[in-house]
Amino acid sequence: MPPPIILYIAMSLDGYIAGPDGSVTWLGPYEGGDEDYGYGCLLARIGGLLMGRCTYEQVLGLGPWPYGSLPTFVLGSRPLRAPDKADVSFVAGGPADLVRAARERTGRPLWLVGGARLAQSMLAAGLVDELELALVPVLLGGGIRLFDGPLPPGTLTPAGVRTYRSGLVLLRYRIERGPQPTGA
Amino acid sequence: MPPPIILYIAMSLDGYIAGPDGSVTWLGPYEGGDEDYGYGCLLARIGGLLMGRCTYEQVLGLGPWPYGSLPTFVLGSRPLRAPDKADVSFVAGGPADLVRAARERTGRPLWLVGGARLAQSMLAAGLVDELELALVPVLLGGGIRLFDGPLPPGTLTPAGVRTYRSGLVLLRYRIERGPQPTGA
Repeated sequence: MPPPIILYIAMSLDGYIAGPDGSVTWLGPYEGGDEDYGYGCLLARIGGLLMGRCTYEQVLGLGPWPYGSLPTFVLGSRPLRAPDKADVSFVAGGPADLVRAARERTGRPLWLVGGARLAQSMLAAGLVDELELALVPVLLGGGIRLFDGPLPPGTLTPAGVRTYRSGLVLLRYRIERGPQPTGA
Repeated sequence: MPPPIILYIAMSLDGYIAGPDGSVTWLGPYEGGDEDYGYGCLLARIGGLLMGRCTYEQVLGLGPWPYGSLPTFVLGSRPLRAPDKADVSFVAGGPADLVRAARERTGRPLWLVGGARLAQSMLAAGLVDELELALVPVLLGGGIRLFDGPLPPGTLTPAGVRTYRSGLVLLRYRIERGPQPTGA
């Protein structure tokens, strides 16, 4: 078994991970407080990050590079600017190429940061092994969904639930490939 | 404050409450076992049921009327057949008319059973006071969504989380009218 790819992401109760314009300002009240919602444990476990090109640009725009020297693999061509002290690789091709490059370099679990398009295509391709959903007690009523299309057969194995005082609930699952219940 | 309207419903982790054809066979593994997933507590609390016409027909098709003599209010015109021993009223108009009729008769909390169209229109009209989501550890990959459009401003107040051995998680929230965070 190769080391797992972990999709750790915040989602509103109605299934959105960003506003209609890709903004995540709605997550503001959940950032920088006493709780880290499992983020520290995640960082201690992984050997690298996977992200889409738009998410990379978005992270750059938010301020100093927040991931230290963790190897970061971005799907897409090299941009004009890259943060000085970060270890960022740009991988051409598709999600499978991204995963291959990151696994060859790190040999360790990988955090799939996002965004929606990369997360959706990796879910659709059966490339996500673990889900860590930080379910935020908010109804956005619109925006960019995490789950938005057919998925390959598979089963979710619950791997833990943690509730926080803010009302956020961290839901953890392993995704096993194979037959799954269908709505048909 | 009038007695609350409670939307208690099972939803897959990817946000679906039924398969593409409205079927709920995917819930089979969670029915009839040792756990009732909060259903008994709900029944003890409510004074009546609200449902859409299609859900009513679907319930009839599943076998004996399962709700005993609980007053049931169906949005739509009277059908050709109705169960003998059930207390079923058919209400013309819209969701607000349904709620008015049920509150006048019962004066008690009401369970909004579904289906999706009625739940969505009542959420959109700000007529749901409490959410009890039985989040099922399944990714359906398609079907009929619970949340599928704009919602009025409001805030979710977490009201409890319960986890079950099956991996199902019961999430409870109160919906308070008023400004809410937006993704914009």
